[in-house]
Amino acid sequence: MKIVEVREQSVSIRSEISNAYISFAEMTVSAAVIITDVVRDGRPVVGYGFNSNGRYAQSGIIRDRLIPRLMRAPARNLLNDEGTNFDPFKAWQIMMSNEKPGGHGERCVGVGVLDMAFWDLVAKIEGQPLYRLLANWFRKGEPDKAVYVYGAGGYYYPGKELFGLRDEMRRYLDLGYDTVKMKIGGAPLEQDLKRIEAVLHLVPSGRHLAVDANGRFDLATATRYARALEPYDLKWYEEPGDPLDFDLNCEVGLASSTPLATGENLFSMQDARNLIRYGGMKRERDFLQMDPALSYGLVEYLRTLEMLGENGWSTRRCIPHGGHQFALHIAAGLGLGGAESYPGIFEPFGGFADDIPVEQGRVRPSETPGIGVEAKPELMKIYEQLSS
Amino acid sequence: MKIVEVREQSVSIRSEISNAYISFAEMTVSAAVIITDVVRDGRPVVGYGFNSNGRYAQSGIIRDRLIPRLMRAPARNLLNDEGTNFDPFKAWQIMMSNEKPGGHGERCVGVGVLDMAFWDLVAKIEGQPLYRLLANWFRKGEPDKAVYVYGAGGYYYPGKELFGLRDEMRRYLDLGYDTVKMKIGGAPLEQDLKRIEAVLHLVPSGRHLAVDANGRFDLATATRYARALEPYDLKWYEEPGDPLDFDLNCEVGLASSTPLATGENLFSMQDARNLIRYGGMKRERDFLQMDPALSYGLVEYLRTLEMLGENGWSTRRCIPHGGHQFALHIAAGLGLGGAESYPGIFEPFGGFADDIPVEQGRVRPSETPGIGVEAKPELMKIYEQLSS
Repeated sequence: MKIVEVREQSVSIRSEISNAYISFAEMTVSAAVIITDVVRDGRPVVGYGFNSNGRYAQSGIIRDRLIPRLMRAPARNLLNDEGTNFDPFKAWQIMMSNEKPGGHGERCVGVGVLDMAFWDLVAKIEGQPLYRLLANWFRKGEPDKAVYVYGAGGYYYPGKELFGLRDEMRRYLDLGYDTVKMKIGGAPLEQDLKRIEAVLHLVPSGRHLAVDANGRFDLATATRYARALEPYDLKWYEEPGDPLDFDLNCEVGLASSTPLATGENLFSMQDARNLIRYGGMKRERDFLQMDPALSYGLVEYLRTLEMLGENGWSTRRCIPHGGHQFALHIAAGLGLGGAESYPGIFEPFGGFADDIPVEQGRVRPSETPGIGVEAKPELMKIYEQLSS
Repeated sequence: MKIVEVREQSVSIRSEISNAYISFAEMTVSAAVIITDVVRDGRPVVGYGFNSNGRYAQSGIIRDRLIPRLMRAPARNLLNDEGTNFDPFKAWQIMMSNEKPGGHGERCVGVGVLDMAFWDLVAKIEGQPLYRLLANWFRKGEPDKAVYVYGAGGYYYPGKELFGLRDEMRRYLDLGYDTVKMKIGGAPLEQDLKRIEAVLHLVPSGRHLAVDANGRFDLATATRYARALEPYDLKWYEEPGDPLDFDLNCEVGLASSTPLATGENLFSMQDARNLIRYGGMKRERDFLQMDPALSYGLVEYLRTLEMLGENGWSTRRCIPHGGHQFALHIAAGLGLGGAESYPGIFEPFGGFADDIPVEQGRVRPSETPGIGVEAKPELMKIYEQLSS
């Protein structure tokens, strides 16, 4: 049982959207395939991986460092002790050999891409959808049947402002989402409040609307927003300031009772631990959004969940960034609080199985073995090209 | 005045050394050249950059993201307001456009490579060695004449143990260094203490010997070492644990009076700020080793120095990792406490001008305009090939 080849390719997921920090007009992701000599139904089993949006393809690191380490390793070093399947934990150690500690950016994305492909592969060899495998391995066989997902977007529409925003949000609600998230910080506070109020007319209560500043604010602005947002009783106030400014996060959390959400720009257990140690996040109130596909994969995410458990945090407070099937399977398999979704954006990597609709704000993972790339025909086209 | 082309190439700096964490057998750096249409002495002026050892070449990020952004920018956006030279601060903003906050690894190395090339270029166009330009711009024209450098190495010599170590250290002292640094953590404590005692016979006092654990220890081991090292009155105890485990750093600092040194694996102002906020580092006792060439370049390092100043830290407590001329010029120009050196390792990128010896533990930067690549003929061979 061995890897025959690992291929990677940068794929554009360009989009005309902007958040308060960056434009997505040049955005790319890495798509990777691990081809093995294991045969199921007469065909070699392959594992598919990709990264979440926001941090670009990692072709250089994957091709220059990670793939060569995997291909140089003796084949049995990548297998479980019984030799019956690949072992994502051993693969992780091999990918990270001769890598110094600290500096958790980019490399964590590259490892995340291949880690996803390993989990896809392992679940396929077991003949199971990933969420069932995860529930069996880590949760005594009890997966969640469906996962809470929320529709993230709420962009700025220069020229058509509130009409454009309301149209977009209505579209998400029509798709079956019952919670939506919108951008703030790209306009003055007063204008952002008008945008928030426009969306609040569409949802049952503030608890069905989250707002996201994408790390843009300084302390004064972040706390000014915190106080202004308080009366709306929102679902959460996301990334008020720089993701590594834990003092700021702490002060903003004290400035209002609105739940905070952050973590999508923390890419290791160590960085997440610093948020928990110094960021003033409240276990009963706040949400954690670390994204396995950007953060050294599920192997590292399991370490993060362990650290959270040691600090008294429930997995239900975790709602990862990502908006794809890998995050969905992890949420269902490990009992997280939910998963982000970007309806219609970052396709074909974003989104869930084509044939499974969102119903009352929840969605089921697909029953296809692995993470379910095969349940998204447009995504399969990319991987068929990459594999051929 | 414009950039004609930017080229980058991965170059091996493989070495048989290991620290407590990684082997350097596959180590690479990025060498980059910025070719302009500015002519001096009948030849186009070029800027040379590279990264310090330890974090690999960044060909992917440099070629896929950073160079295209620089080449797409209108030429005047890269110039100072008078249009008389390139502006490293504006170049930095352009390189970092559409980059999300947080995640400071790898990207910071790529930006560091090109930032170095911009400073080399700017100083050459001004006809000055970089250290004089920095002193003029940021320190009222008062550079240090020479910079404290220490010889870092002190590797493990399987089979010839203390003999190999002593030979190496004697070599550094013979070269003119008066402080040396050795690895610890690659052997049990008792054996490391024997190694330390062997080296202490060669130097005037413990204050001429630093030890480096390369982030390997857990809290219990790190504090056990701290207590065992205390009687030797060493120069410093470097990176006892994971570079992002600020609680550990804090506890180790409390466990003994030996100065701590850390920071080479913190790659942004934000990460350095967290060390200052949470790491328990003492202004009067400890040392900071953030490395501009790995950390978004000198533009970001100036932000880090500003943050340190606001927190009451003197620039004299900063002794950057790096071991090359860029770090030396920054140290002399900005009045840092010194610079690391790896005698004979990581050549031809490591080391200082070939014709300027280390004397009594200090070395002068070269008077060649720029960072002085031209004063290292072996290094110039690489750049001549890259430019041709």
